[in-house]
This record gives sequence, C-alpha cells and structure tokens, in this order.
Amino acid sequence: MSEKKTKVAVNGYGVIGKRVADAVVAQPDMELVGVADVVNDYRMKTAAIRGLPIYAALPEKAAGMREAGLSIAGDLDDLLAQSTVIVDCTPKGIGAKNLERYTKAGVKSIFQGGESHTLTGHSFVAQANYESAIGRDSTRVVSCNTTSTVRTLVALRSAGLLKKARGVLIRRATDPWESDHSGIMNTVVPEPHIPSHQGPDAQTVIPDLEVVTIAAKASHTQTHNHYWIVELSRTVEKEEILDAFRAAPRIAFIRMSDGIVALNSTIELMKDLGRPRGDMWEVALWADVLTVNGNEAYYTYQVYNEAIVVPENVDAIRALSGVVSDAHESIRITDTALGMRREFLIQDAPGDKK
Amino acid sequence: MSEKKTKVAVNGYGVIGKRVADAVVAQPDMELVGVADVVNDYRMKTAAIRGLPIYAALPEKAAGMREAGLSIAGDLDDLLAQSTVIVDCTPKGIGAKNLERYTKAGVKSIFQGGESHTLTGHSFVAQANYESAIGRDSTRVVSCNTTSTVRTLVALRSAGLLKKARGVLIRRATDPWESDHSGIMNTVVPEPHIPSHQGPDAQTVIPDLEVVTIAAKASHTQTHNHYWIVELSRTVEKEEILDAFRAAPRIAFIRMSDGIVALNSTIELMKDLGRPRGDMWEVALWADVLTVNGNEAYYTYQVYNEAIVVPENVDAIRALSGVVSDAHESIRITDTALGMRREFLIQDAPGDKK
Amino acid sequence: MSEKKTKVAVNGYGVIGKRVADAVVAQPDMELVGVADVVNDYRMKTAAIRGLPIYAALPEKAAGMREAGLSIAGDLDDLLAQSTVIVDCTPKGIGAKNLERYTKAGVKSIFQGGESHTLTGHSFVAQANYESAIGRDSTRVVSCNTTSTVRTLVALRSAGLLKKARGVLIRRATDPWESDHSGIMNTVVPEPHIPSHQGPDAQTVIPDLEVVTIAAKASHTQTHNHYWIVELSRTVEKEEILDAFRAAPRIAFIRMSDGIVALNSTIELMKDLGRPRGDMWEVALWADVLTVNGNEAYYTYQVYNEAIVVPENVDAIRALSGVVSDAHESIRITDTALGMRREFLIQDAPGDKK
Amino acid sequence: MSEKKTKVAVNGYGVIGKRVADAVVAQPDMELVGVADVVNDYRMKTAAIRGLPIYAALPEKAAGMREAGLSIAGDLDDLLAQSTVIVDCTPKGIGAKNLERYTKAGVKSIFQGGESHTLTGHSFVAQANYESAIGRDSTRVVSCNTTSTVRTLVALRSAGLLKKARGVLIRRATDPWESDHSGIMNTVVPEPHIPSHQGPDAQTVIPDLEVVTIAAKASHTQTHNHYWIVELSRTVEKEEILDAFRAAPRIAFIRMSDGIVALNSTIELMKDLGRPRGDMWEVALWADVLTVNGNEAYYTYQVYNEAIVVPENVDAIRALSGVVSDAHESIRITDTALGMRREFLIQDAPGDKK
Repeated sequence: MSEKKTKVAVNGYGVIGKRVADAVVAQPDMELVGVADVVNDYRMKTAAIRGLPIYAALPEKAAGMREAGLSIAGDLDDLLAQSTVIVDCTPKGIGAKNLERYTKAGVKSIFQGGESHTLTGHSFVAQANYESAIGRDSTRVVSCNTTSTVRTLVALRSAGLLKKARGVLIRRATDPWESDHSGIMNTVVPEPHIPSHQGPDAQTVIPDLEVVTIAAKASHTQTHNHYWIVELSRTVEKEEILDAFRAAPRIAFIRMSDGIVALNSTIELMKDLGRPRGDMWEVALWADVLTVNGNEAYYTYQVYNEAIVVPENVDAIRALSGVVSDAHESIRITDTALGMRREFLIQDAPGDKK
Repeated sequence: MSEKKTKVAVNGYGVIGKRVADAVVAQPDMELVGVADVVNDYRMKTAAIRGLPIYAALPEKAAGMREAGLSIAGDLDDLLAQSTVIVDCTPKGIGAKNLERYTKAGVKSIFQGGESHTLTGHSFVAQANYESAIGRDSTRVVSCNTTSTVRTLVALRSAGLLKKARGVLIRRATDPWESDHSGIMNTVVPEPHIPSHQGPDAQTVIPDLEVVTIAAKASHTQTHNHYWIVELSRTVEKEEILDAFRAAPRIAFIRMSDGIVALNSTIELMKDLGRPRGDMWEVALWADVLTVNGNEAYYTYQVYNEAIVVPENVDAIRALSGVVSDAHESIRITDTALGMRREFLIQDAPGDKK
Repeated sequence: MSEKKTKVAVNGYGVIGKRVADAVVAQPDMELVGVADVVNDYRMKTAAIRGLPIYAALPEKAAGMREAGLSIAGDLDDLLAQSTVIVDCTPKGIGAKNLERYTKAGVKSIFQGGESHTLTGHSFVAQANYESAIGRDSTRVVSCNTTSTVRTLVALRSAGLLKKARGVLIRRATDPWESDHSGIMNTVVPEPHIPSHQGPDAQTVIPDLEVVTIAAKASHTQTHNHYWIVELSRTVEKEEILDAFRAAPRIAFIRMSDGIVALNSTIELMKDLGRPRGDMWEVALWADVLTVNGNEAYYTYQVYNEAIVVPENVDAIRALSGVVSDAHESIRITDTALGMRREFLIQDAPGDKK
Repeated sequence: MSEKKTKVAVNGYGVIGKRVADAVVAQPDMELVGVADVVNDYRMKTAAIRGLPIYAALPEKAAGMREAGLSIAGDLDDLLAQSTVIVDCTPKGIGAKNLERYTKAGVKSIFQGGESHTLTGHSFVAQANYESAIGRDSTRVVSCNTTSTVRTLVALRSAGLLKKARGVLIRRATDPWESDHSGIMNTVVPEPHIPSHQGPDAQTVIPDLEVVTIAAKASHTQTHNHYWIVELSRTVEKEEILDAFRAAPRIAFIRMSDGIVALNSTIELMKDLGRPRGDMWEVALWADVLTVNGNEAYYTYQVYNEAIVVPENVDAIRALSGVVSDAHESIRITDTALGMRREFLIQDAPGDKK
C-alpha cells in the first residue's frame, strides 16, 4: 500500500511544523517526504536525530546548516519535486510569499492561521467544511482559537441549539520555549479592539455564525482558556448540551472532580497519558463546570495552541489530495492514528471506540 | 471643629486595614484613634514609624509585640472605649467573632466582604444604598470585585440602560507581597462553579440586578480585570454609555491610546500620579476599548483589589455614625480628601472639579 | 528470563513515583508488581488507563478509589507480599512511618530525599557509593539538588581537580502541575539560612566534600538552576574540566550556541527528543558557558527536579537486591534502558555508545 | 538662596529620568529647569499634571506632543540654554549621540550605565570616587547592579576586609510596567558569558577590585537579587562585617525575622514606609542571613533597579558643578532630602540621625 501513500512535505519546522510532521508520520496513508527550514539550532538537530530528511528552505542557508553538522538532502525545489502536498508552517507572512512557488511546482499547499483568508480564498476546519476543500489547490487551516471556536459552536449549531455566542478568550502570552523578549510578566494585556479577530475569523469558515469574541493575553505560557456565554435557541437541560459536544469530534471532557482544576493540571494529564510532547489535540471542555441557566449556557474550555490545529492539517492534506471524500472518514483515520479521546479519564469511553 | 470629628478605630492592619487607616487620617471629619493587630513584624513596625497608636487585638499578643520594640497603647477594649466606629479588617471569618464584642462596647462596626451578608444583614456600596445604612449599628462593605460590579452596573441602571449583564472576572491570584505558598504559577484556575459568587453578592446590595459572573484566577498579582457583555434596554451610541459612567462616582477612564495598554501600565500610572502606595480607588475603565454593538455593550476595566473598597469604608463610617445624611455629600468629601479622579490623564477634567 | 526479574513495588504514585514506575517497566531485569496510592483523581485514573495494577495504600481509601471506577488489586500488604523491593515515593514524612512495615514484610525499601538521612542510615548516589548499599535493607536516594551536586562534584573529585565548591542554587518554586496555593509570584525567596541544606546533605553521601550551598526559590516551575564557583586543586584548561564531566555518568552537555539559552529551551529540547513526559534524567550542563579563570571554574547547569533521581532509584533497586554488584554495570543498564545521552545534540556521540 | 541653586535639566523622562527629576526637586540646592522627551503618552501627561516644564527633545516630536494636549515649553536647545547640568536618561545608545550637543551648549552632562565607560572616560559611584569627578564636564553613573556591587565591596574594602568577591546576580527580567514583548516567562535565562559585564564594570570605578560576577535573568519584574561569596583578608566575626556595612552609606538592613522574607515583601515595606513610587534607593541587605564561615562571608541583598542610581545621579550633579567638594557632605544632603534609612525597621536608628 506504500505506493498509494500521499507524499507530504512540511516547510517550517517550528511549533506547528514539527507536530504536523509527527502526525503525518503517524498516518497510515501518508508519507513524510521531508522537512524544510533555515535554522541550524537544536530544533533541526533533533529533527536529524529523529531521522527526518532535512531540506534547506533557502539555498543561502544550506552552508550554515551543513557546518552545524546537519545532513542536507536538498533545497526546497528538491523537496517540492517529490511532494503532492506541502504544509506551510513558516512564520506569519512568509507563507504568503511561498504560495506562488508551490503552485508553479504543481504542489498543493496548506497554510496556517497566521496567513490571511484571502491568500487561498478558503479557510478550513474539518468538521465544518471539509467537502468544500476537496480537490482545491490550497487552503488555510484557521488558528488555534478559531479552530476551537468553530469546533464547539458547530457542535451546538448542528444540534440546533445555537442562537448567539459571546466569548472571552484568555490567551497564553507566548510559547513555553520562548525566552527572548516575547513574554509579558505579572499582567493581563487586553486586546485593544472588540470584537477581537477570532470571531470574524470563524466567520471565514461559517459566514453566518453569530459570534463576538473579546480577547486578552494573561501571564502564562501554555494553552488558551475560553469562557463562553451562549444564548440557546430554546431552554434545554445541561445533558443536551453535553450530548451535542459528545456528538462532535475533537472535543473531550475534563472534570474538576477528577482534580483537573486548572490549565496546568490538564497539561500534566497529557504527560500522564503518554502523549508525544504532552500534546492535546482536542478541545478540553470542563463537563462539570458547564452550566445552563434558562436559555443560556456558560462553559469554559482549554485550547492547547501548540497542537490543536494538527489534526485539521492532516485532514486538509486528504481533502486537497482528494483521496478521502468524506469528512467523517478522514477525521476517523486521523484521530485513530493520533490516539485522540472523547473522555480523557474514562477507560474505553464510547467516544473512543468510534 | 476637631471636637466634632468621628473617632474611628481599625482592627486588623493588613492590606485593607492599613489603607483604611490612611484614608481616615486624610478625612477632615474623622480622627484615627488607633489600630489593633496581633503581629509584630514589619507591618506593625512601619505603623509605629508612621506614628500610629498601636493596640494589641489579643491580650496574649501584647508581650510579643512589646518585645519586638512596639509601643502598645492598650488592648482592644481600650481602643473600643475611645471609638465611635470600628472598621474590622481582620482576616475572613475573624470579623464574625468580633461583632458581639463591638456591640457590647456600643461601638458601631464595619466589616469587609470576606464576611457573609447575614453577619450584619446589610451590605454596602455608597452610591447604591448609603441611605439605608444611616444610623445602623453595623454594615458590610462588599468585596473588591462586587464593589466594582455594583458601581458600574448601577451607573448603567441609573441611566436606564441596563437590561442584563454577563461578566468574566479574571482575578489576580494573590496579593503582591505574599511569598509563602499562596500563589499560582503559569496557569489559569477557573472557579469550579458558574455563577461565581460575585453576581449573587452584588444582589445583596441590589436584589433585582440581572447579573451573572464567571470567574478565574490568572497568574498575576495586581488588580482584577473584568470583561462585560451587557444587554442594553435599547440601542444606544457609545457616547451615551460613557456619559452614564461619567455621571457615576468612582469610575475613571483610561485609554489604550495613552499607552495604558495592560494592567501593569495602569499601576505604573498610579505611581506616576504620586498616589500613596500606588493605590487606585477608582474603577479604571478603558474608554477607547468600550464597544457598542446594537443593543449590546462590551467593555473591560481594572479593579485594584487592595484599595478599591477604601472609599466605601470611609462612607460607611459616615453613614453608620449618621453625621452626613446624603450619599453624594459623603462621597464628595471622601473623594476630595483622597484626590480621586474621573479622568486619570486629563488636566482639570470636569469630573475632578466637582 | 522473566523468573529472574526483580519484583518492584512503588508506594506513592506522584511526581517521582509515576516516573520510577515507568523506569522500572523499562528495565530488562525488573518487573513492576504494582503501584499503591490513596487518591482517586486523574493521577490514578491515568495509571489505570496505562494498565498498571493499583493497590490501596490505606485500606480506608479503597472504597473511594473503587467508587471512582478504579479496579483495586489489593491493599499495601498484598502488594508487599509480591515484592522484593519497594520504592517509597510518598510525601515527605510519610515514608518514615512506612519503614517498619516494609521491614516486617521482609521487603527492602528505598526512600526519597524528603526523608532524613537517619531513617535508613544510608544516603545513595549511584556513582558515588553504590557498593556500600549492596545487600542493605534500605537506603535513601538524596533529593534532586543534592543528586546533581554529588554527580558533578564527584566528577571533578575523581579527576583530582576539586578543592572546594560554592554553589548558588536557584530553585523552581513549585511543580508545574500545582495550582492550589503552593506557588510564589513575581519574586525570589532566599533561604533564610546559609549554608542551605543541600551542601550538608551531599556530605551524607561524601562526608569530606568541601561544599557550601546558598539557595533561593525563583518564580518558575520547571527545573532548578545551579551556579558554581569551584576552587580547583590546580590551574587547568577548560577542556580538562569538560573531560572530567564527560568521564562521569549522567551529566550531559547543552550549548548556548545551539539555541539552548534558558531553562525552558532545554525543556523544549526534551520534548523534541521524544522523552516520555519530557523528562531529563541527566544534569544538563552548559559546555560553552563554563569558564576557567586560573584555579577557579565557574559553570551553570539545570536540574530537572521531577526526573533526575529516577535513575538513582533504579540503581538503588539493584544495589539493595544485590543482583548487580558493579555500579558501572547497573548504571549502564539503567541508562541504556532509559535512553540517556551524554551530548543532547550530537548524533552518535561517543558517550552514547557506551 | 534660590539664586544659588544649580539649574538641572533631565533628558529622557522614563524609569530613571522621572525619578531623577523627583529627586532634584527634593534637593535644597537644586532647581529642576525642565524635562525633555519625545513621547506623548501617559508618562508625559502625568509630568504635565505634576506641573513639570516639558520640552520636546526632538523638534519633529513637538507637534504630536502638543496635539496630545501637552504644553511644550521649548526644544532641547531652549532647555540647555537654561541649565548648568543635564542628566541624560535617554535609552541606551542615544546618550552617546547627545554628548557633543551638550558640550557645545556648555552644559555639563551625566549619563547612565547603559552608555559605555569610554563615552565620558569617567564612571561614578559617589562613595568611591566623588572627588575625581569634581569639575569634570561629564561622567557616567554606573548601572544599578554595578552601583550596588561597588557600594558593598567598597564598604568591605574600606574596613580592610576584602580579598576577593564572587557574585551571582539574579536579575529581574524586565521593568514592572513593560507589557510589550520584553519579558521572559516561567524560566531563568543565564548570561552566556562568565564573567558577566558587572564585574568589569565595577572595575571602571575601582580598577583593582578583585571581583567576578555571574548573572542570569529570572521570572520576576522587581529588583535584582545578589548572592555573594566573599573571601576575607582574615577570619572575622559576623558583627565586624555588619559594622563595615553600617559605616558605609546607602546600605540598609532588612531581616527575615521581621517578615521581610522575599523580594516582594521588601517592596511592600517601601510602600508601607510611604516612599514615593515605592522606591528604594538603598541596597537592602539581609542582616540575619549574612553568614561568616572562617575567612568567607556569604550574603544576599536586593537592588531596586528603578531607583538605586538616583542618589548617585544627584551627587554627580554636585560633583560636576563643583558646588560641594566633599563626598560625605553631598551624600548627606542627598540622603536627608530623600529620607534614606540605614535600618528600615528601627525607629530613630543611629544611622538615620547622621
């Protein structure tokens, strides 16, 4: 079956790129052709130790990479020549410059949420609009916060429950590995504009979603934390809301009663579960905090920004390449390969068997 | 006029107590009789250096306090014997045990938000219910978050604009001076129950307030930060909302455009304004972040938890003692004495002239 | 060969216990009989999901654990009945109460650095005094900071280079998963006494070590960071010092020049290397920061407090059970099983081949 | 006596500039002519509210400043025309460009530690080398860490006790008001080079000082924290060391036994003492942590980086202008005007009476 595997390249081996690379390797129907980057520090050296073929994204960087002891398999053109789909995980703004090159090489391309919707004209969340991406030349996987917003609100909408949603997004300030002038300390920094960009960004996927987001950065480095006030289309019982989330993919329940009482206990849980890099691809929603008050629901969840978009990138590969035409089938393959869960702490949870 | 000054004692010289003591000293119509506490560390030593009469709140603590070099003027009974009103700023739960003693001594008493509403049967926010406290034997000044909630929502309600309010309260995790096992690190800790207690607590002041609060602790030590989604009684212009806040006391505007872009820049501003201890007694509301969307308003403000209830404590002294029968008059005296502002960064702002 | 495996129990499935359990499972000559604890939260639920046999450390806790859905294999006596060695990873002070019970059951026991040296009369660091533990009934693996101190100073001493050592230890304030009142925020808390306990604690392993430590807690949660000023027995070249560290086990080099510029970049590196839980068992010493100035050496390293004592616990199992009589052989088996490195970022580093 | 006051200008109204301005205003023999800057945000608006004459440091910034409502008294030339001494507190590197302009205007100038020693050829710490600055055209006040190092080591040296000193400097990562990408989070960042620059920088003041410094940034925003290992010229009693510090200016004692147990409790103490902006100009040295071990002394102190160099700037004004020829006399005037203390928590401490 090897000859049927989709040949995938990753350009940009950073926070997202290295995780997409791992996820591609884990898929039964994909082959990671190689990863391209420009740096020669610990990130690429660990890629080498892990045995990944390394390409120089810029020819002028190849010498420095070789001097640092990296074995360079070729340049970006060499990588493109072998690939069917490339996942561009370069820093914000760089991707936009790469699109034309990918197109010329006849390689389909996936961009991240840092790029604008207009770059590809299509923004992607698997459960919301997989079908519309089938056969396209390119798409953009929306950012972590937007992905979680679409996953949860589409769950409520699919159950006929959503009227309008107002979210307060307390973002992590920088990534946990950053040490050079990127953090905030002992403060909260509100976004100066309301609505923040995440609400409109969700509308690039679902144009008529009635959503407003307010965002701020807080003084922690791991995972965003959302608080939602949702007006429902009718008065419901709490269990109906939970069922709506259960019926949707990539939302998993955590509970205060299990000692998962804060963002960092969820992170410890991921380590305890043996997740690679401690990653959490699911939206982790506190089932026992969710409250229904007449026709309003209030809930909070956690978004592991370093990993949550990884499964969407994997699905986007299948959609663009056209090898799987059904969203549910692609989601099933992706989630099984990664070992995703519906309940983090219940053994053999029904959701996990699907 | 000295003989007419209300004689005030403060029991508990901690975060709130020391600030109430300073504020009482600053009032033209009050005299600080003394402060009582049980510790002999730097807090009381600075009280001594500042020249405040110190009393031992517990007789068995007097010896230790004297050994530490503190001059002890007497015990709590001695302090009560000289006082008309005592402000109890002892740790949560201790105040409840003190009420009977104050009553027996014929001294009117004010408690803080850590005590329950039922202790005194009256919860106090000056602009909302000053009159109902006049002549009472005791009241309870609600906590920092509740005080700010009442101040702002009463402002909207008084302008006939408030239908319902939903707030997400991102609290500071511990006070900035705490160093012994009281903090959280690199995380956010959501309250396990929705609504959090602040909404119902505001209803102890305004029973029919339509408010729900959701709360969490974030990894910073200074000031709480509220995000509000308010359904208005009608569609309004933004300026109407600002005017409603301008018409109410103890709400002051800050602006992103002035470089006040985060909780910590506001704190720096208080230092730059020469505030004692860097205190901010006002709700600091970002005028240029506030957004109106049809019949909804979204806004964020900052609550300096160490100081915001200080003016309410001062007003409560006047209400209980009955020396000032008009809320606005008491608020005017308090705010003038403290040097409170309506606009932090506009010279001779109209609000400041009142 | 299964019948020859040493049967090992772990009591206390917390930060250290869960890692010791994982490491025992990874050893070719050991069998993990089960883990005992008293809680029924996410920690034990993940142990169950991972398939570990779970025992109730206290009989009265068994019911609650079963109610939470945990399958309980028995109580502590049942666990002891199947074990040759038990590793006690219970909270500080609890271990001391367990020793007699272990002894009565004829099970050899290993305690952690939170217990006092006098409990077992023997404190253990594999490379320093493995032989003296062979056949003993019990020992104590010293704490994370002490373990790193002994590893590095014994390395210098073995090379004949150590005269005296002065260390400043900047500790992490609490573990990364803690969220309930255990942290410090935006401060540094110096230990009130100099020397701090780590220097004398190292002398429980090497009595004549000339070492003084000064310690403080800083506002981060992951890894301790040591700064050493070492007076050498003679003037040396920097390379001699590096060679001394290379010749010793469980010290691995990191370099600023590889982008490993701070504690958190090392942690990211462990994730990139695919380490379980992101663990680092080695002392990570900055090879390119180390400086020699005449007969003084200055260097800094990083101690992953959650994991560094794990290999020592594994070696202690072999020493007590007596199945391996040579320290180097035990260290070799342990380190190979865990995949430890001498150079984190050099492929096929000579040290790794040993 | 007004006509005798030295006319002082401050260029750069930031962290240091605004404090130097306040300190100049507090001196009996100085007059603050005005402050110059280029921004129009809250910093300058508070300067205006405080009534300081404001000048545009760059002509092209004047319009924007006026538009923001600031009353601009003139440009930098206008300010220089009225000044005898200017204190340059502009960001690192800008000062170097200003020197020639100051010289041309015939105004003596003082620079901060961010500029290099070679800019003026003279680096200044009042108690160490005041006399050598008398009548010079310019000098450079060394940075906060270097100032504290010189103050304490000169104290020991003057008492004939200092042989060599090794310090580990745990720096704050960014200033408490910074919110835009300047912080580090949940980590420690060691300086990549040993010795760090502070040791050599101290030698620009005292060339033969035997000192090596090792530095790192930790995850807090307020005050640097030094740990020193000092080899003494002979075996001494602890009290001799304390006396040496007592005999030197601008070192004040704090004690763990008073509850001053961490960096942040000292900061609270400054607020409690009523210090403007909560400033601490003294080196705060823990008297009860200091330990003597044979001919070695170990101690730790705290450096309030935002304020510690302010008194040195004031003294430098007197030295350059030549109005006071004796270092002790200048130090006495400065310290009395600021209200500096030798013992923070002892009333009428002998040191305070001087």
